[in-house]
Amino acid sequence: MRISSENCSVGRALAVVGERWSLLIVREAFDGVRRFQDFRNRLGIASNLLSTRLDTLVSAGVLERVPYQDPGGRRRDEYQLTERGADLRPVLLALLQWGDKYLADPAGPSIIPRHLTCDEPVRVVLECTAGHRPLTADAVRRTPGPGALIS
Amino acid sequence: MRISSENCSVGRALAVVGERWSLLIVREAFDGVRRFQDFRNRLGIASNLLSTRLDTLVSAGVLERVPYQDPGGRRRDEYQLTERGADLRPVLLALLQWGDKYLADPAGPSIIPRHLTCDEPVRVVLECTAGHRPLTADAVRRTPGPGALIS
Repeated sequence: MRISSENCSVGRALAVVGERWSLLIVREAFDGVRRFQDFRNRLGIASNLLSTRLDTLVSAGVLERVPYQDPGGRRRDEYQLTERGADLRPVLLALLQWGDKYLADPAGPSIIPRHLTCDEPVRVVLECTAGHRPLTADAVRRTPGPGALIS
Repeated sequence: MRISSENCSVGRALAVVGERWSLLIVREAFDGVRRFQDFRNRLGIASNLLSTRLDTLVSAGVLERVPYQDPGGRRRDEYQLTERGADLRPVLLALLQWGDKYLADPAGPSIIPRHLTCDEPVRVVLECTAGHRPLTADAVRRTPGPGALIS
C-alpha cells in the first residue's frame, strides 16, 4: 500500500507559495524513497530536472549519496536524508498544516503525521522560551539578531 | 532603522529548498511592508515578476488589496496579509529556524522572532496531541488521513 501524493497538501501549499520540486523530493525522502527512479515515478518529474534538484540537495548537505548494487545490476547511488535534511521536518509539517487547513480535499487531509511512540497526531506549534504556548501568528515580532545588517 | 534582509536565513533556506519570491513577499508583509514600491525596493525583484507574484498571492487569498491614496497622489492598492496569509507564520519561522541552524552568518541570526508579550525568543516545536514535546524529526511517521488516495 502506498499513499498517493496526488492531493497532498504540501504540494498544494507550495504550488501557492513557492517552487515545488526541492521540498517535494525531501517529502518523498521522509516517506522512505531513496532511488532515482522511485523519486521520478512518485513525483512525475522529468529526469533532467530531478537530476539537477538532487545535485543541488546533495551539494547543500540535505541529501547524501549512498552506493548500492542490486544482484546482477550496476552499482548506483541512492539518496538518503542527512541530519540537515531531517531537520526540514518542521518546514514540511508547517506547510502540511497550512495546506490542510486551507487546501485539503473535502474528505480531509491525505496525510496525518503521528508520533511514533503514542500514535497521536503531530502538530507544529509556536512557543517562546519562557514557556508560553501555543502562540498565535500575531503574537510574534521580528527583532534584529547578532548577525543583523542594519540599513 | 530597518533591518536588511540581505543575509536573512529564510531567504537562504528557500534558495536551497524552493522558489524564493512568494514566501519572501509574505515575509516582508509580516514585517509591515504593504506597498508595491516597498516590496520592490526591499526585495530587489523586477516589477513584472513582483506584479505576477502579488496577483497569485491575492488570488490564493494570502494577501488582499486595500485601496489607499496619498495627498495629491493617485488612488492605489496596498497589500495586506489575510488570516490565511498570517497562518503562514509557522512556515516562515520553521524555514528561519532551519536556516539559522545551518546557513547563518558566523555572527549569528539576523532576525530573532520574539513573543510580543514577554519578549522571549519564539521557536517552532513539534508536539503530539497527547502532549509529548518537543518531538524530534525521526519521532514522526506519515499515516493516511481521511482524504488519502491509495495507489
